[in-house]
Amino acid sequence: MSKIRFTEPNREILARRDSIINDLTRLVDPAGLITSTDECRAYETDALTAYRKMPLAVVLPKTTEEVSAVLKYCHDTGVKVVPRGAGTSLAGGAIPSEDAVVLGLSKMNRVLAVNYDDRFIRVEAGVTNLSVTAVVAENGFFYAPDPSSQLACTIGGNIANNSGGAHCLKYGVTTNNLLGVRMVLIDGSIIDLGGDYLDSAGLDLLGLVVGSEGQLGIVTEATLRILKSAEGARPVLFGFPSCEGAGKAVADVIAAGIIPVAIEYMDKAAIEICEAFAKAGYPLDVEALLIVEVEGSDAEMDATLADITAIARANGATTVRESRSAIETAAIWKGRKSAFGATGRVADYLCMDGTVPTGKLSYVLAEISKIVQRHGLRVANVFHAGDGNMHPLILYNANDPSQQSKAEAAGDDILRLCVEVGGCLTGEHGVGIEKRDLMRCQFDDADLAQQIRVRAAFDPRWLLNTDKVFPLDFRCQG
Amino acid sequence: MSKIRFTEPNREILARRDSIINDLTRLVDPAGLITSTDECRAYETDALTAYRKMPLAVVLPKTTEEVSAVLKYCHDTGVKVVPRGAGTSLAGGAIPSEDAVVLGLSKMNRVLAVNYDDRFIRVEAGVTNLSVTAVVAENGFFYAPDPSSQLACTIGGNIANNSGGAHCLKYGVTTNNLLGVRMVLIDGSIIDLGGDYLDSAGLDLLGLVVGSEGQLGIVTEATLRILKSAEGARPVLFGFPSCEGAGKAVADVIAAGIIPVAIEYMDKAAIEICEAFAKAGYPLDVEALLIVEVEGSDAEMDATLADITAIARANGATTVRESRSAIETAAIWKGRKSAFGATGRVADYLCMDGTVPTGKLSYVLAEISKIVQRHGLRVANVFHAGDGNMHPLILYNANDPSQQSKAEAAGDDILRLCVEVGGCLTGEHGVGIEKRDLMRCQFDDADLAQQIRVRAAFDPRWLLNTDKVFPLDFRCQG
Repeated sequence: MSKIRFTEPNREILARRDSIINDLTRLVDPAGLITSTDECRAYETDALTAYRKMPLAVVLPKTTEEVSAVLKYCHDTGVKVVPRGAGTSLAGGAIPSEDAVVLGLSKMNRVLAVNYDDRFIRVEAGVTNLSVTAVVAENGFFYAPDPSSQLACTIGGNIANNSGGAHCLKYGVTTNNLLGVRMVLIDGSIIDLGGDYLDSAGLDLLGLVVGSEGQLGIVTEATLRILKSAEGARPVLFGFPSCEGAGKAVADVIAAGIIPVAIEYMDKAAIEICEAFAKAGYPLDVEALLIVEVEGSDAEMDATLADITAIARANGATTVRESRSAIETAAIWKGRKSAFGATGRVADYLCMDGTVPTGKLSYVLAEISKIVQRHGLRVANVFHAGDGNMHPLILYNANDPSQQSKAEAAGDDILRLCVEVGGCLTGEHGVGIEKRDLMRCQFDDADLAQQIRVRAAFDPRWLLNTDKVFPLDFRCQG
Repeated sequence: MSKIRFTEPNREILARRDSIINDLTRLVDPAGLITSTDECRAYETDALTAYRKMPLAVVLPKTTEEVSAVLKYCHDTGVKVVPRGAGTSLAGGAIPSEDAVVLGLSKMNRVLAVNYDDRFIRVEAGVTNLSVTAVVAENGFFYAPDPSSQLACTIGGNIANNSGGAHCLKYGVTTNNLLGVRMVLIDGSIIDLGGDYLDSAGLDLLGLVVGSEGQLGIVTEATLRILKSAEGARPVLFGFPSCEGAGKAVADVIAAGIIPVAIEYMDKAAIEICEAFAKAGYPLDVEALLIVEVEGSDAEMDATLADITAIARANGATTVRESRSAIETAAIWKGRKSAFGATGRVADYLCMDGTVPTGKLSYVLAEISKIVQRHGLRVANVFHAGDGNMHPLILYNANDPSQQSKAEAAGDDILRLCVEVGGCLTGEHGVGIEKRDLMRCQFDDADLAQQIRVRAAFDPRWLLNTDKVFPLDFRCQG
C-alpha cells in the first residue's frame, strides 16, 4: 500500500546501533534483548500487516525498574521507543521505525493482587485481557472490556487504545474499568496514577493516559475494576430484511433508554462469512442481523427481551431466535468474535473503526454502501451497534495495487462521513499511523495544538511512539 | 481560621486596577461588569465562608466570544482569573484573590439543544444542575449527577469538580455523563473536546478537563448524556445498632456485586440533625442509618431488596422500612440532601470529602471517631457510602479560635487516614485552597511534577485559579 509515508530514519542513531545494543545489555536481562534480524522480524509489524519496518532492537523487560532504566537511557541518548503489547493493533500503533527500540511488555505478565471485597485486581501490563477474567471467574467475577482479540491482546495495549468490545455497551470501555496505573515516564521516573479506588485528587492524568497510544509513558502495572457476573445471560438473534430496519431498531432501543449488555450488527456479507466459519446458526435469509445479549434473572431477561422484540418487530424483524443452551451461546459469540479472522480467509480487508451517534446508524450504513460501490469494491459490516462503533471491512485484493489505493480512499471517505455526522475517527482501534492525517477532519489547529502541548508535557523530545497519532506536518509547527 | 495562607497580591496589578476595569468595559456588555465594593462582596467567598478576599473586579460574560476576549486580555496583560459557577464550592475553589478578575458564568444559562434519539442535551455552563433534569423530565429522561447543592450549582462548576451525588453509585459522576465541552483557553482560543457522541480520537483532553478546578480553561458549553428514568424507584431505611454493622453491610453489598442506585449513610448525630429539620421519619433509636434506593420494575426492586435486606440483617439491622409513597420518598431525600444546611443550624462545621475503599468503611468510621475525640470535638457522618465517599462534618464553635484550629487539624488527620487506607483526599468537592497542602500526602514529587507540567501546557503563566489545588511551595520548583 502507499498511503502511509514513513519518516526518514535518523542516520546518526542507525550508525550508533552497536553501541546502543551494547548499552542495553547492561540495562535488561540478556534473555530480554533481541537484536538478530530473524528474531526482530516478529516485531516488524502488528495487525496492520500491510506496513512493516525492522526495529533497531527489541527489549523485553521483566520489571518496572528495567523499563525505567531503558527509558532513561533512551531519553538521555535521544533514541526513539515504540511500546508494544501483543501487537494486535489494527491501526499500526505498534509498528516500529528503523531508528527505534521496541519495548515489549510480554514478560511482565504476573498477577500482583486480587481483592474481592473492594473488587479489583492488580496485574502487570503484559497480562492478556482474557486471562484477567480467567483469574477471577471461579469466584463469579469478570473484567468487562472484551476486545475480539482478547485471547492475545494485553492490558497495557488495552489501556493505550482505550479498548472496548461487544459487552461494553452496558459496562463501559477500558477507561470506565481502570482504577489506577504505575507508569514510567520517558525520563525514567515512575509515577502512580489513580489507585485501588475511584477518582483522585488533582488532575485526572489516569483518564488522559487511557487511549494515549503509548505516547505519554509506558504503563507497567494496572489496577482493574472487576465485576460480579450476572445471574444469567442470553443472546438473541434478530434478523431483518433490510439494513435500514436493523439500524433503526438499534437507534430505537437506545433512544428508549434500554441498555442490553451487547447489540452487535452484521450485514449479509458478514453473516455469510461468519456462519461459514463458526456454524453459529445465524439466519442466512436476511439482509442484517442483530445479536442482542441481555442478562439478569430469567424474569428480568424475559421483560427486557419483550421490550426489545417489540421494537425489532416494529422495524420489520423477520427472525427472532433466543439461544437456548451454553453451546449455542458459545457458537453465537465465536462467530461474532472471529469475524475479522473469518473475513481474512475470503478476502483482504481494511477494517475501519468510526463511531457515530446511534440515531445516524441507518443513514451511515446506506452511505457506506454507496461509498464502497463508488470505489468499485465490496464491504462487510460487523460492529458494536449499540455503541455506534462501526467496523466496515472494506474487501479488496491486495495483489492488485489499484484496489489497494481504492480501499484506502474508501476508508478515508467513510471516516470523514463518521466525523461529519457527529461521530469520530476511532472507537477503539486507535489512530496509530493509519489515521494520523485524518485527525485534521476531527480537530482544528487550536484543538491539535493543545493536544500536542499536553503530549510534550510528558515527552518533550517526542521519543515515545513518535510517528503515530498526530499529522507529521502539524507536529513540526506545534 | 488560620490554616490557609494567602499569597501577597501583585501590587503592580492592583495599581493598574482602574485601567484594567476601563479595558474590560470594552470587552463585555456593561451590565456584565461589576466593580463596586458592595456588589463585589457577593463574590468574595464561596461555601468555604471562613475565608474571603475581595476580587479586583467581576465580569459576567454572556457569550463564549466575550469569555474569549476577557481571557485573551488577561493573558496578554498578566491578570489572574478566578472562574466561578454558583460559588457553592466547599473547598474554596471559587474564592478570589485581590489581584484577580472573577469570571462568573451565571449569565450563560441557555439550553442549546435537546436530542432524545441520541440522548444528549447541550447547555451553556451557567445552567444549574437541577434545571437540566427539569428540561428533559417531561419526556421521562434525567441527568444523573445530583450534588446536594443541585438547586444552585452549575454544570460548569460540576465539570470543574467532577461532581457526584447520592445517585452516582449506579450512574457514575460527572466524568461518566459528559460527552463534550466547548472551552476557552487562557490565550482566548476556543477548543471543542469530545462531541455529541462517546469517546474521541487523540488524547482524552475531555477527561482531563473534568475535575481540573478551572485551571486548564473555562468551559462555556457542555454536552451531557441524559438517561431514561427507571420504571420505578424506592428508598428503604435500614437502621443499625452500631456504625460498624452499617459500614460492614455497605461493604458486603458492594462486595456481592449488587449496585443499588444509592447507598447513603448517616450516624446518630446526623440522623438527629436531619430528622429535626426534615421530619423524614428516620429511626431515632439506632446508631447508624442506611438509605438504600433501588429502581426498576416492582419485581426487580423486590428481588434486589430481598438480597440487600438479607445482608443488612446479617450485619445486625434492627429497622427495615420501605418508602410507600411519593411524599415519604421526597421527605427521605429532602432530609439527606439538606444534611449540610441542617447541620449549619446547630453548629459550625468543617465538611471533609475523603474517599475510601468500601471494604475499609467500618475501620475508617471507628478511626474518625477516635481522631475527632482526640481533638476534643464532635462529628456527624453523612455520606455516599456505596461510593466510599465520606463526608465527616466536624462540629465546632467558630467563635472559639482554639476550636477552629482543632477542627482543621482533625480534618487533616481524617484525610491522611483516607489516603493511608488506599482512598483519596477528595471525592467530589475538589482540592481548592482547602486541601492543596495535603496533596503531598497523596502524591510524591514525580506525580506532582507531571501534573504541573500538564497544567502548564494549558496555562503557562499560571493565571487561571492560580492559588488552588497545588501546594504553593511545590509550584515554584515545578
